[in-house]
Amino acid sequence: MNAGEGAHSYVRNSSYQSGVVDVAKPIIEEEIATKLDINTLQNRFCIADFGCSTGYNSFPAIEIITQAINKKYKSPENTSKTLEFYVFFNDVITNDFNTLFTSLPPHINYHAAAVPGHFHGRLLPEYSLHFAYSSWSLQWLSALPEAVADVGSPAWNKGEILYTRDRKLVCDAYLDQFEKDIGLFLESRTVEMVSGGLMVLLVPAVPDFWNPESEYTVTWDISYLLGSCLVDMAKKGRFSEAKVDSFNLPYYFPTPEQLKAILSKNQSFTIERFEIRDNPGKHTLASVNARAAFLRAVNERLVTDHFGSEIIDELFELYMEKLEASPVFLNPDNDKTIVILVVLKRKLI
Amino acid sequence: MNAGEGAHSYVRNSSYQSGVVDVAKPIIEEEIATKLDINTLQNRFCIADFGCSTGYNSFPAIEIITQAINKKYKSPENTSKTLEFYVFFNDVITNDFNTLFTSLPPHINYHAAAVPGHFHGRLLPEYSLHFAYSSWSLQWLSALPEAVADVGSPAWNKGEILYTRDRKLVCDAYLDQFEKDIGLFLESRTVEMVSGGLMVLLVPAVPDFWNPESEYTVTWDISYLLGSCLVDMAKKGRFSEAKVDSFNLPYYFPTPEQLKAILSKNQSFTIERFEIRDNPGKHTLASVNARAAFLRAVNERLVTDHFGSEIIDELFELYMEKLEASPVFLNPDNDKTIVILVVLKRKLI
Repeated sequence: MNAGEGAHSYVRNSSYQSGVVDVAKPIIEEEIATKLDINTLQNRFCIADFGCSTGYNSFPAIEIITQAINKKYKSPENTSKTLEFYVFFNDVITNDFNTLFTSLPPHINYHAAAVPGHFHGRLLPEYSLHFAYSSWSLQWLSALPEAVADVGSPAWNKGEILYTRDRKLVCDAYLDQFEKDIGLFLESRTVEMVSGGLMVLLVPAVPDFWNPESEYTVTWDISYLLGSCLVDMAKKGRFSEAKVDSFNLPYYFPTPEQLKAILSKNQSFTIERFEIRDNPGKHTLASVNARAAFLRAVNERLVTDHFGSEIIDELFELYMEKLEASPVFLNPDNDKTIVILVVLKRKLI
Repeated sequence: MNAGEGAHSYVRNSSYQSGVVDVAKPIIEEEIATKLDINTLQNRFCIADFGCSTGYNSFPAIEIITQAINKKYKSPENTSKTLEFYVFFNDVITNDFNTLFTSLPPHINYHAAAVPGHFHGRLLPEYSLHFAYSSWSLQWLSALPEAVADVGSPAWNKGEILYTRDRKLVCDAYLDQFEKDIGLFLESRTVEMVSGGLMVLLVPAVPDFWNPESEYTVTWDISYLLGSCLVDMAKKGRFSEAKVDSFNLPYYFPTPEQLKAILSKNQSFTIERFEIRDNPGKHTLASVNARAAFLRAVNERLVTDHFGSEIIDELFELYMEKLEASPVFLNPDNDKTIVILVVLKRKLI
């Protein structure tokens, strides 16, 4: 994610992702009220957000969670109880935690800490975490599936930058990696979470079927439009075609069926809820500029690390031209990207 | 502290502070071996560094601490035991934690987290901390003593930017604030530390007597040389004299006697060691440039917040001229600044 608070920053270009917290609010409140089931002798609650970026979309979620826990554990008979909240903001080690800290809302009711590192591995002490949250982050893979960049493999993803439905082997390689990564994420949280603790996951996803003639998803937008811009630039000689062949984006948006199958394999959590929602944030990207800024904030570092920073402005100018010429992508109602809201509960040990 | 890794950064100008970890090493090792006395059923050790800045001087200390704990708890009879270390790096919320995270040594044997906020208050969960460390940080006050900036007070510090021995009321106001702050620091750690946990404090200090004709301390350098540069600039009309009158630096270097008296008042810790050491880092500041760069890395933000950033280059050029003309300050052997090494143990509850 782009750092800081400038024109291309994640902070100023993450409205697409931010709407999901409103969708999740009543569910988080209800699940905490009815199912959070932990030993509260110490009056201490540890909450973690896995994939917090610079915090802009994280802070409202943390507020909802702490208020719901306060409501439950500070009942009218028990108003004197002071709950202590410790919130661990996690993202990769190069994340802009300075911006996160200086953006913390005033008068927060929790102690904040940053925990850098990949959320597929262990980050927190054993049996220390009461509530885990992750929004619009689990699509990130820990690594690219090797086969897609391997010229000798039948899953070689020549001329494309992300999986597309018409290349089944590429799709399968991405799905395998996604399954492995979700497995590692849950294994790590299994050790870190206390019995009876809750986990809320908001995972961007795609429906089993959508019509590419009249509809799209975020991943299709990236494969089809952004990918073809890179191919065009290679043809113009900006860089070699092999450079495009070796570039693949490290994220995967599952279908609901795929995600459910993966989650069901884990033995340490029960699936309390699994709900599919439309993404309300899509209506914030109705202009060419807004849609380009959203994609740039998320992908800029990956693109410039591979192609160099000198190509980025041209790439997104070209992208905007193509977007303008593709009216299907400019109507937010055609965006069939969905969000899966999952609530997991750590089984009693 | 100046952020980043540039020419004026703390990273590149903190050799003066860095020598103390070598002084502390054998003492930390011995104290952990003989006195760390905690329930290790969980095999989890939490360590915190209060006032870590960008980590440059913190990482070697953490390595010493984790190695000593490993040596003690992974005895020959018990080599299979895997210890988990969680290290909490603390500094103020505007500290450059991004640089700290990206500077972490490779292959560290601990999980790192950043905990922003003033160390005079609570930062960590109750009974969670096994080892506390703080080097060259406790001299920072939580606030300026009010009287020194109050025109109506007999402790008004007109025309000076730090206490000097010849203004007893100003000194007393600074000492009062220092005592209050150390008290708050220890109260917070009392709640956070487990019984039998250890705390190592390296506190910059000044001897009870030194001769200003032939010797100096860091605080005297700042009061006498840097302060007089600001007075000269006010006389030249760069800013008003009132601007200098209202500027006071928020740190205090105690004498050993003062620090011991303050620590002895606390009922929750026993003083296991209290040792006075020369500061080996002073020999790294033998040139005008090195000494100016050291003072600038520490004081730049405070100066520019008050006077504006446009005066900073002129100020340090003037400082270097004065330093050049004051040979006493250029011989590191004349630097009588000392370091007090304190080991405290949390009493059994």
